[in-house]
Amino acid sequence: MSKVKEIQQYLRNTNVDAAFITTPDNVFYVTGFQSNPHERLLGVMVFKDAEPFIICPFMEIPDVKATGWAYEVVGHADTEDAWDIVLKAVQSRGALPTSITIEKSHLTVERLERMEQLFEGATFTRLDEQLNTMRNIKSEDELDNLRKAAALADYAIEVGCREIAEGKTELEILMAIEFEMKKKGAEKMAFDTMVLSGPKTASPHGTPGDRKIQQGDFILFDLGVVYNGYCSDITRTVAFGEPSEDMRKIYETVRQAEQAAVDFVRPGVQAMAIDKAARDVIEDAGYGQYFTHRVGHGLGISVHEFPSVTGTNELALEEGMVFTIEPGIYHPEITGVRIEDDVVVTADGVEVLTKFPKELQIIQP
Amino acid sequence: MSKVKEIQQYLRNTNVDAAFITTPDNVFYVTGFQSNPHERLLGVMVFKDAEPFIICPFMEIPDVKATGWAYEVVGHADTEDAWDIVLKAVQSRGALPTSITIEKSHLTVERLERMEQLFEGATFTRLDEQLNTMRNIKSEDELDNLRKAAALADYAIEVGCREIAEGKTELEILMAIEFEMKKKGAEKMAFDTMVLSGPKTASPHGTPGDRKIQQGDFILFDLGVVYNGYCSDITRTVAFGEPSEDMRKIYETVRQAEQAAVDFVRPGVQAMAIDKAARDVIEDAGYGQYFTHRVGHGLGISVHEFPSVTGTNELALEEGMVFTIEPGIYHPEITGVRIEDDVVVTADGVEVLTKFPKELQIIQP
Repeated sequence: MSKVKEIQQYLRNTNVDAAFITTPDNVFYVTGFQSNPHERLLGVMVFKDAEPFIICPFMEIPDVKATGWAYEVVGHADTEDAWDIVLKAVQSRGALPTSITIEKSHLTVERLERMEQLFEGATFTRLDEQLNTMRNIKSEDELDNLRKAAALADYAIEVGCREIAEGKTELEILMAIEFEMKKKGAEKMAFDTMVLSGPKTASPHGTPGDRKIQQGDFILFDLGVVYNGYCSDITRTVAFGEPSEDMRKIYETVRQAEQAAVDFVRPGVQAMAIDKAARDVIEDAGYGQYFTHRVGHGLGISVHEFPSVTGTNELALEEGMVFTIEPGIYHPEITGVRIEDDVVVTADGVEVLTKFPKELQIIQP
Repeated sequence: MSKVKEIQQYLRNTNVDAAFITTPDNVFYVTGFQSNPHERLLGVMVFKDAEPFIICPFMEIPDVKATGWAYEVVGHADTEDAWDIVLKAVQSRGALPTSITIEKSHLTVERLERMEQLFEGATFTRLDEQLNTMRNIKSEDELDNLRKAAALADYAIEVGCREIAEGKTELEILMAIEFEMKKKGAEKMAFDTMVLSGPKTASPHGTPGDRKIQQGDFILFDLGVVYNGYCSDITRTVAFGEPSEDMRKIYETVRQAEQAAVDFVRPGVQAMAIDKAARDVIEDAGYGQYFTHRVGHGLGISVHEFPSVTGTNELALEEGMVFTIEPGIYHPEITGVRIEDDVVVTADGVEVLTKFPKELQIIQP
């Protein structure tokens, strides 16, 4: 069943007149049309009992048609009020909807207020959970894209390791990686690529710069690519020359924590148990205070989506869910280490999409 | 006066108890703290009669302090409800606010509903226009950053022209540009860099790919960088080998349209007149139907901000406003051409921040 038909079915089941979806990622998920017109209005309106339509900037109409969208598409020019055009498209379908379901975790207050004017007296309900539920479980097609995105990320780490050399800067390594990714067909990086070295590894959100690689450094790569609209997200930490005993101990703790969490993944297990599996290993080793974030996040069209893998999420895992597992230890006096895989819940366990080795890689100077 | 104090002054003038600002760009503008924690809560709350505070993910507290933020900062862990922490921080300041001003064009419906629960009975007003008014007029410090961002963009076009050669792909040229930008100190590209060649120039929003440069192509660069948090955005279209007469005519029309719009900029002129100045030239030359977008957009911390330079915006320009001027002709059978400058309104006219030549550059094969 197409995603549009699935939404339509949901409207019938819940007896809601229409759904208006305006988040670029959700519009892509539902229609296959990928675009981010920023402050300009983009949306797909699905009706319980009428034909859906897409509203987009006028100049994107040909791109919508190129996706094979079989229904109406209406455009708005920069000089027009896009909401008037929405209203006309709705009016042409008959009576105005009296109940509309929207993405409350994305739609702005301003847009809701405008809709409340246009559709006076209508009630507005949350569509978020329905869309999350649909997006949470990846189809085989989606998994194929995620596998390819992950394979590209593996290769990016390989490139990064190959580029490491005494005196090279973090940025030089970063650009070599991104160049290879574009050549290999990645649409774009999924987020700002991170290459951090030496003491900078101890910041979970550091910025790559002109620091030159030195012997004895750990180098932390955190990167991902977008392939056919789907994201990967991998982290590996490697050594340049011999690391100290303290560094090795931290690395080994993170590696065991990450593996413990991966090994715990199977249908029925709660998301919070995955977080705990990693956190227990790190706490038992005495580094608990240095693991300052959740163990992972959902991954798909968005680089951060559901399910969130936190210590409090009671959600039971289901086959087809995809998320990251990325414990880290950020010790300000020794080093930072993070290891991150992308995993999918299978019928009886887990498939790890990212395959670059996790045993400590020591690059010889 | 600091931006926090300006907001506080605004609250006193309008007799509103508090402002809650949660858009990363506005948080940066008001506090100097630059971060995008995605779905995690980041915000600054400013009070009419109490000390402001920043709420951010726990692990970003040191980064907030590093900016010199002189007031309270409260953190939330991934396992905590960030809104409970907001409430406690507000309660510690005395009575709950009964009026709160928010960014209605950014804040999500979900977050507003949560605030309506926490601050029962409070009224919520729009802060958007006040923030836009503040951000619309750039300070000398901001202009300095914008000048540096524009100078980097000029250099990027130079690099792009240098890289053009028979058989090179759009992506190869793109990556060479981005590598040079990072080396020169650009924090990041302001948006996805566009390098389009030949027939692909006729799409206002095309995607660079594996197409190889051929003699007789126009090559269109649209790119920008972020420098100290401020964006540039430049477009230049250049020729590889001799262009046809039709291509020359389109180029010359766009060049004259762009220059006409630039020459029209001065305080007191309406934004719509700038759009008209360019559009008239293109319409008079018979290409009106191929100029399908507004002539420009505001530029600053965001790559698209106010003022919007459309055919209907009656806003009178004021000294210190910064925006792009970027007319284009997209002729499906001949070529696309766009030329884009970043300009600032000065006391008596205009300063053009982007300086790469606009006479047709013909790169010899």
